[in-house]
Amino acid sequence: MTTAPDIGLKPFHAMEMVTLAQEIEAKGRTVCHLEVGEPAAPPAPRVLEAVRAALPQPQRYTASKGLIELREALVHYYESQHGVSADPQSIMVTMGSSAGFILAFHAAFRPGAKIAVTRPGYPAYLNTLDGLGFRAVEIPVSASSGWRLTAADIEAAHAAEPFEGLLFASPANPTGAAVDRAGLAEIVAACARLGVRFISDEIYHGLDYRGPSVSALELTRDAIVINSFSKYYCMTGWRVGWMVLPDDLVRRAEMLQQNFFISAPTLSQVAATVALGERDYSEEQKARYAANRHLLNDGLASLGLGTGQVAEGAFYAYADVGRFTNDSLAFSKELLNVAAVAATPGIDFDRVNGNRFVRFSYAGSRQTIEEALARMQMFLIGR
Amino acid sequence: MTTAPDIGLKPFHAMEMVTLAQEIEAKGRTVCHLEVGEPAAPPAPRVLEAVRAALPQPQRYTASKGLIELREALVHYYESQHGVSADPQSIMVTMGSSAGFILAFHAAFRPGAKIAVTRPGYPAYLNTLDGLGFRAVEIPVSASSGWRLTAADIEAAHAAEPFEGLLFASPANPTGAAVDRAGLAEIVAACARLGVRFISDEIYHGLDYRGPSVSALELTRDAIVINSFSKYYCMTGWRVGWMVLPDDLVRRAEMLQQNFFISAPTLSQVAATVALGERDYSEEQKARYAANRHLLNDGLASLGLGTGQVAEGAFYAYADVGRFTNDSLAFSKELLNVAAVAATPGIDFDRVNGNRFVRFSYAGSRQTIEEALARMQMFLIGR
Repeated sequence: MTTAPDIGLKPFHAMEMVTLAQEIEAKGRTVCHLEVGEPAAPPAPRVLEAVRAALPQPQRYTASKGLIELREALVHYYESQHGVSADPQSIMVTMGSSAGFILAFHAAFRPGAKIAVTRPGYPAYLNTLDGLGFRAVEIPVSASSGWRLTAADIEAAHAAEPFEGLLFASPANPTGAAVDRAGLAEIVAACARLGVRFISDEIYHGLDYRGPSVSALELTRDAIVINSFSKYYCMTGWRVGWMVLPDDLVRRAEMLQQNFFISAPTLSQVAATVALGERDYSEEQKARYAANRHLLNDGLASLGLGTGQVAEGAFYAYADVGRFTNDSLAFSKELLNVAAVAATPGIDFDRVNGNRFVRFSYAGSRQTIEEALARMQMFLIGR
Repeated sequence: MTTAPDIGLKPFHAMEMVTLAQEIEAKGRTVCHLEVGEPAAPPAPRVLEAVRAALPQPQRYTASKGLIELREALVHYYESQHGVSADPQSIMVTMGSSAGFILAFHAAFRPGAKIAVTRPGYPAYLNTLDGLGFRAVEIPVSASSGWRLTAADIEAAHAAEPFEGLLFASPANPTGAAVDRAGLAEIVAACARLGVRFISDEIYHGLDYRGPSVSALELTRDAIVINSFSKYYCMTGWRVGWMVLPDDLVRRAEMLQQNFFISAPTLSQVAATVALGERDYSEEQKARYAANRHLLNDGLASLGLGTGQVAEGAFYAYADVGRFTNDSLAFSKELLNVAAVAATPGIDFDRVNGNRFVRFSYAGSRQTIEEALARMQMFLIGR
């Protein structure tokens, strides 16, 4: 462990665990999948009906910004859920939030620019920044403050090493930490003060166990908002998300989208348009995660894998495995090979302290969590 | 027109024409779409059946390299169509060829690197290179040599301004020019001599009116091969393609894919797996393009819009409109607004001489081409 963390390109260990788990499944074993943040359910029945109805037509490229019906449905979403009006021309449908990050970085900054993210945080933040030739600045957050980022953290980090952008998620991956309205307003204000472009990753919006999530759009028109249908709408493999752009970046972002990606998958856009109207279905899924959340948290605690308080949002438990190992990657691989439980080593999210943590997703079924806990108990006894 | 061409980020005019055409259609007019290279037909019936069967299951992320069934089907494709053996581990399924370019550039080069492309060429080459922070070197090709790139062109361009990579398509967009085996071997050899990484864009393979297309894989293991299901398999809006990577780039490309994109759309991968076995259907579509090709070429010639000889591949006529205008963008907009015929101005493909050219796609139906030619006749008489 170096004191100056390596922020170069690394594999996305969660996806590596998927591949390893599939190899084990190919040998006939049943794996409990807790490694990736993927809902167990398909999208709502009406979503699938709409896709079935659209299938016979050729699925052509859409306008690069996306189907106008979908963008208008998103305008309605911001009105009804967040009480803000958005212009459909400032909304762009993307190939998941993944493509949204690429577009956001290249729309707002030039390669070499420094962009801040929290540590721990979503692994693709660091890796995508490095892979694209940007420089990441990590702002550490800790369990002792509920993993929450504050304006003071931002100011201190900026004073030590100035950055042009801040990419921040609430609820966050892997910790589930979420800021409230005052907390988000403080972050937005700090960015404005420092002249830092704020990129708000809102992919876990809706999956907030305290109540409605607050969008950066409610507080500022200068932020880039990135969201996705993957999590709340159970559409990971559909690869469809969206971004809301501030006026000064709309045109550049559109030109980048035209050339980088042409347009997002058409059937997925059809599906997404319907999914926005099926929030009751999403709330049913969320109720399952909410139950799983306590089940997993209590179960991990009883095994000595501490998670502190339960997470406020998303569907992850970020567990301290320091009692058992100082090498979360080896621990995760052993857990997979011996107990057929797939989880993600903390080094994916934190290259400094992640060796002591493992992330477990509770987006799957209750049965999966129960079986995983039983297997982990045997595994830990056997060590 | 400057002598030093501007190679900065520009809109993708073909996509801009799509948006303008949709605005006209929203007013109730029927537009003849010749602006985008999109097959009129949906994918083969068995492809749609497979998608329908897969729909009820959750469409999860796949392994980042893609479904193993699809990669094995691609191995079979290279064996049966090209007589070469490929390793499924060196194949990566991508979000269309678009994502393939981004992955290829960042796997093989570092931002700031110079990469050569032909002029005219696919607009996203220049724009994506610029948007990502790479530098493009243009190698001009001309109608007088059938728009074909030669080893001598490459050597001369490299002597004037050295570059690290060459991105080249055969058949090419917008000219339809295609090299034969000897021509491709000459290009591969020139790259090897100069230490230039060759990226072979094979998206129009199959749509070669002279016979089977030659893959760079038949000639070298050092090239990055990029391909897509969009054109030959009628799957533009599905956003699925693939790349074949040389051994030294496989791991870096996989890590980039994991972080940049996670995985390609799952339903599209299911569709693509079946599409590879439905070449008879694709050959039926190709027979239509082959007929359209002569119809459009002859029709344009009789209108005074010269295309020279018919293109050898793809589904475009790149017409010299110099008799009527020196501003292909204004001409294309007028043609759309007055005659409701959508085409793409040559400036999309060539920022030096493209003001004298317009690209017409003949991937649509025969009726569309006939109607477009009749409307253009009226339009040109009325000028």
